[in-house]
Amino acid sequence: MTPKDFRAQISAGEFTNPTAGYCNGYVQANLVVLDKKYAEDFKKFCEINSKPCPLIEMVGPGTSHTSFLADNADICTTIPRYHVWEEGKMIKEVNDITSYYNKDMSFFLLGCSFSFEESLMDAGIALRHVDQKINVAMYDTNIPLKPVGPFHGYMVVSMRPIKASQVSDACCITGNSPIAHGAPVHVGMPELIGISDLAKPDYGDAVEIKDDEIPVFWACGVTPQNALQQAKLDFAITHAPGCMFVSDILNKEYGK
Amino acid sequence: MTPKDFRAQISAGEFTNPTAGYCNGYVQANLVVLDKKYAEDFKKFCEINSKPCPLIEMVGPGTSHTSFLADNADICTTIPRYHVWEEGKMIKEVNDITSYYNKDMSFFLLGCSFSFEESLMDAGIALRHVDQKINVAMYDTNIPLKPVGPFHGYMVVSMRPIKASQVSDACCITGNSPIAHGAPVHVGMPELIGISDLAKPDYGDAVEIKDDEIPVFWACGVTPQNALQQAKLDFAITHAPGCMFVSDILNKEYGK
Repeated sequence: MTPKDFRAQISAGEFTNPTAGYCNGYVQANLVVLDKKYAEDFKKFCEINSKPCPLIEMVGPGTSHTSFLADNADICTTIPRYHVWEEGKMIKEVNDITSYYNKDMSFFLLGCSFSFEESLMDAGIALRHVDQKINVAMYDTNIPLKPVGPFHGYMVVSMRPIKASQVSDACCITGNSPIAHGAPVHVGMPELIGISDLAKPDYGDAVEIKDDEIPVFWACGVTPQNALQQAKLDFAITHAPGCMFVSDILNKEYGK
Repeated sequence: MTPKDFRAQISAGEFTNPTAGYCNGYVQANLVVLDKKYAEDFKKFCEINSKPCPLIEMVGPGTSHTSFLADNADICTTIPRYHVWEEGKMIKEVNDITSYYNKDMSFFLLGCSFSFEESLMDAGIALRHVDQKINVAMYDTNIPLKPVGPFHGYMVVSMRPIKASQVSDACCITGNSPIAHGAPVHVGMPELIGISDLAKPDYGDAVEIKDDEIPVFWACGVTPQNALQQAKLDFAITHAPGCMFVSDILNKEYGK
C-alpha cells in the first residue's frame, strides 16, 4: 500500500490505529497544531531543541495542506487519531479535526524515531521493544530544554539497550538521522540524567537490559507534548501517541 | 613551522623526538616497511582490518618517496626514529634507514589517532592523557583480527574516559575520521573484550576514570606492530612509537 492510499483510507475513516509497521521505509511525523500567535516561538523552540523536536515541515496559517512531506495532503483528516488540548490538558480524542480548523492555525510536523529504528535494524542492531512488539521505554529527565516564549521544560528520552560492541555504531547511524532525533543524548549512567529506576519508565514499557548491554538514551518525541503541557496554552491539537502522519518521503531519501 | 621544514630538520638529524604536538592540524602517519613479497597480503590485511590499520598511502617497491601525503618526501630519512625488526623481534632503533633500503621494499603509511583527538578537543571533549601530558592507555584484547597470509592476531585498543553525556558525540566525531581508526570498537564493559584491569594498561599510561565517565575503546595503531610480531617475518621496519611521519595534508581536508 502506498502512503497516498494509506492516507486515503485514514481520511475515509477506515483506519484508526497506530501507524507503526505501515508503509515501512517512509518517514512518519508527529503533529503539533497551535494558534499562529505562538508559531514563531514554537518554531524557534524546535530549532534550538532540534534533537527532541526535529521540525520537518510547517504548514499554515491559511492552509492545512502539506507541500513537502506529501503533495497536498490535508493534515486535518490524514492522521488516524488526534488529541485536543485545552489549558495544558488533553480533553478529547478525535479521528478528524476539520471541525476545529480555522485559518489562524499553524501545523508543525516533527520527525519521529521510526526512521532511525529502521536504520539500526538494517545494520544488524536488534531492538528489544520491536522484537517484543511493545512500546519503547521512555523517561522524564533533568535535561533542561532551551526555553522560548511560553515553551520550556525538560527532555523526555527513549531508552534502548544496545550491546557494548554496537553502541558506537548505534551512535553513528542515528547521528545520520537528524530528522529522527539524531545521535543519543546520553550513554549509560541513567542516574546522571535524573532516572532513578530503568524498570519503571514514565511512558511506554520496561525492557530487560542484558549483561552485555548498555542503556542508550535518545531524545524523544514526547518532549514537545510535555512542553505544550507546561506552556498551558488555551488550545492545541497533537497526534495521538503512535498515530502518525505517514509521508511520501523515504527515510533513505531524506537529506541525501 | 611547516611540515616540509619540520621533515627537513628530521632528515638533517636535528630532530629525533616524538612528533606529538608538532605541526598541529596536519595528518601524522605510522610506518610499516616490508619486503614486496608480503605487500599484497599486508595491503589486504589493512583493508579488511581498516579500523586498527587505516592505510593511507602505499609507496614502492622501487621508491621510498611519497606522492600523496607529501610531495616527494623520502620515508627513509623523514621520520625521527625507526625500529628494525628481525624474526618478529625489534633489534635496533635508528634515525635513518637509508642503509637498509633496497628496491624490493614496500612502505605502508597508516593513519593515527592524533587526527581524531584534535577533532574531539575542538568539540569540547577533554582528553585526560593530553591534559596530563602522558601516553594514552592501551590494552591487548580478545577481539580477533581478520587474518590474511602470515598476518593475524588480536586488536590492540586505546581507552579514553568520556563523560556519559559526550560518548555519543565522541562516537559520531571519530566515525568521521576513518583514517584515524574511526568510531570506537567498544563502549564500557572492558571485561567483554578481555581487559581485566583498566588500571594496568599493556602499553602507555593508566588514567583515572571519574564517576560520570565511561571507558571508550578505539582501535589502536599498535595493532599492526603486534601483527608483525605474530607474523615473525625475517625482516621489517616500523616507526618508533610516537615518532611519526608528519604529512602536508590537513586533518580537516582529508576525505572532504
